[in-house]
Amino acid sequence: MTASEVRALFAVASRPEVVSLAGGMPNLAALPLDSLSGEVASIISKDGLVALQYGSAHGLPELRDQICEVMALEGVTGHPDDVVVTVGSQMGLDMVTRIFCDPGDVVIAEGPSYVGALGTFAAYQADVVHVAMDDEGLVPDALREALRAAESAGRRVKFLYTIPNFHNPAGVTLAVPRRAEVLDICRQHNVLVVEDNPYGLLGFDGQTYPALRSMDPDNVVYLGSFSKTFAAGLRVGWVLAPHAVREKLMLAAESATLCPPTLNQMIVSRYLATHDWKGQIKSFQSAYRDRRDAMIAGLEQHMPPDCSWTVPAGGFFVWMTVPEGVDTKAMLPRAVTARVAYVSGTGFYADGFGSRQMRLSFCYPTPERIQEGVRRLAAVLAAELELSRTFGPIHQRPVSGPQVPGPDIA
Amino acid sequence: MTASEVRALFAVASRPEVVSLAGGMPNLAALPLDSLSGEVASIISKDGLVALQYGSAHGLPELRDQICEVMALEGVTGHPDDVVVTVGSQMGLDMVTRIFCDPGDVVIAEGPSYVGALGTFAAYQADVVHVAMDDEGLVPDALREALRAAESAGRRVKFLYTIPNFHNPAGVTLAVPRRAEVLDICRQHNVLVVEDNPYGLLGFDGQTYPALRSMDPDNVVYLGSFSKTFAAGLRVGWVLAPHAVREKLMLAAESATLCPPTLNQMIVSRYLATHDWKGQIKSFQSAYRDRRDAMIAGLEQHMPPDCSWTVPAGGFFVWMTVPEGVDTKAMLPRAVTARVAYVSGTGFYADGFGSRQMRLSFCYPTPERIQEGVRRLAAVLAAELELSRTFGPIHQRPVSGPQVPGPDIA
Repeated sequence: MTASEVRALFAVASRPEVVSLAGGMPNLAALPLDSLSGEVASIISKDGLVALQYGSAHGLPELRDQICEVMALEGVTGHPDDVVVTVGSQMGLDMVTRIFCDPGDVVIAEGPSYVGALGTFAAYQADVVHVAMDDEGLVPDALREALRAAESAGRRVKFLYTIPNFHNPAGVTLAVPRRAEVLDICRQHNVLVVEDNPYGLLGFDGQTYPALRSMDPDNVVYLGSFSKTFAAGLRVGWVLAPHAVREKLMLAAESATLCPPTLNQMIVSRYLATHDWKGQIKSFQSAYRDRRDAMIAGLEQHMPPDCSWTVPAGGFFVWMTVPEGVDTKAMLPRAVTARVAYVSGTGFYADGFGSRQMRLSFCYPTPERIQEGVRRLAAVLAAELELSRTFGPIHQRPVSGPQVPGPDIA
Repeated sequence: MTASEVRALFAVASRPEVVSLAGGMPNLAALPLDSLSGEVASIISKDGLVALQYGSAHGLPELRDQICEVMALEGVTGHPDDVVVTVGSQMGLDMVTRIFCDPGDVVIAEGPSYVGALGTFAAYQADVVHVAMDDEGLVPDALREALRAAESAGRRVKFLYTIPNFHNPAGVTLAVPRRAEVLDICRQHNVLVVEDNPYGLLGFDGQTYPALRSMDPDNVVYLGSFSKTFAAGLRVGWVLAPHAVREKLMLAAESATLCPPTLNQMIVSRYLATHDWKGQIKSFQSAYRDRRDAMIAGLEQHMPPDCSWTVPAGGFFVWMTVPEGVDTKAMLPRAVTARVAYVSGTGFYADGFGSRQMRLSFCYPTPERIQEGVRRLAAVLAAELELSRTFGPIHQRPVSGPQVPGPDIA
């Protein structure tokens, strides 16, 4: 499928009668819109000449202070000077890739990995080498092996890109004992670590894990975001970089967007200063836990034998593997016809893998809709398996690279 | 000077006792903050679940429709589908450069050119070849010559980057009869035109000029912005691309920021729908005309002989050339000590030229402050000339490339 075919398919999938288990849109229903509305009105009427004016590429000082408080919840002790505010953490990732990668350089990433990251790496012509995960996240031995193989092939590995907590799309979390090991391996191979942590505060039991950055500040670039803990549409994220990288990052950000939107930074700053944002995160945790529970219950009840899935302890996503003979990408149009959508696993690999996998998101629909969606999906899958047993598996030409559209249509 | 030295200098320059003729910050005093505040409050309380949610990389459909109406004022007839909303037009430029330029490719730009564009071209390792301007803007014969020279040297020229109206920093406008000629030349050489037009609606007599895009839609990428006609701090700009480029542009934008901030697009869209935005632009024109008049009067009254300057018919900037023996970059710390700041001309060339030039902006200070600033600058310049006559000129090691900080500190 071409990008526009994918877009057309997802346009159908976004119809109200379709249950979308495809998107990564956060659930905003619990946000205090009325008080937010008043705060934003007061920012514009009292400080409008600042809010509507250019700011610095570095970001507002008060917000950078507050960002350090947010990161402290996961053990990070960074200096506000080393925080650079970005237009979502996607821009942070883009800037980091711009600074470190030349065409042909290698980036190591979990397999599967975040589709938006694969898109960015592709934009800079960096080659992605995937490293396997298991239920405890990235497998250290597999990382060692990948680094050794790349080095003996004479490749330049620039960084490890990892989502340690509640992985998108895999739903797993890097076990705490593995964290030091992964950091050690990267140190030994002189490879930087880029830690992408949008979901770290969304553990369903309020649990957090020590950030990689907290364990090795000089070799980890940390990417953070308010998209999942507050409001994605404001596009406010940040990079906490080793001090030596900070200046380059600011120059790159300046040439990319001049500065992040001032108003949006002031809104986030005001929200953190005046709202019970930790209480708000607790209510997000509970909303997402209910949805995770609904999805897992639905999968257990309806899925045909030989399907397996991860059970995430936080975040937005379940990663499901279907029996041999089913191609999740080929099946998608039939699923959409049956009024349920997902993202096929191939989008999360740079190398064409993932045709027996799919990402199921539970972040956006209600628990009831999630269960209904899973029921529909199970029926499609059962029919597909029946077909495959009768006529043999349907094979698609393998395709590589990110092919899923953005979060609003996915 | 290093980037951080420049930043330190401009930090001093931003003290209230210094008249800054350096910055490019628009004057927002005339904006209707109270009614804006009410509109934004209503967007959040009524449509907050959309405003605070991810959107598409394409941008909101209603805003893209309105953008086409704005562009129609300069003769552009584009389809809303071919508009891609960006985080300021800086991001549009970044995306266009990403799509078209590989390291070592050539971009043709006026000399001098916008410092932020030079930064972007440098980020993608594109080489800038400057083409001379005169009072009627880009000189067609010089463009022909530059293209021929690049071609005979076997260089790949990717596009002409041009600011046809009220040029930053040169203050000149591409004469209408030259426009077709410039477009023809680019066509003949298979070179795309990137038209950057942030100031086009800020002609002091309300005059507009036909956009290059209106004269050759298939070979011009148009960059637009609400930063100078509404509010820079919202970071809403756009690209109108030939249809064939649109898809690539959206993919690039998606990998750069996922999507532009939804709230900000809704604010601009609401502003255009409910405010007399054309009347607001008229009041901006008149405010900037008064400031231009104050600056030109001050220059005529105070400047030593043998200084020359452009007299802009719109926009924000005057470009001044000082007598031989003065290095505007070396002089800057002394000017700041005398409580006036400007940007030295070297920042606007990729090749080290510009040491006898400076950019003087009249957009931000009041007319009285502008005249006071020009008076101070004239005194510094007179002292510098006196020194140079006595001891010979001060020569600095030539440096190349963009070295000025962002709009808030410059």
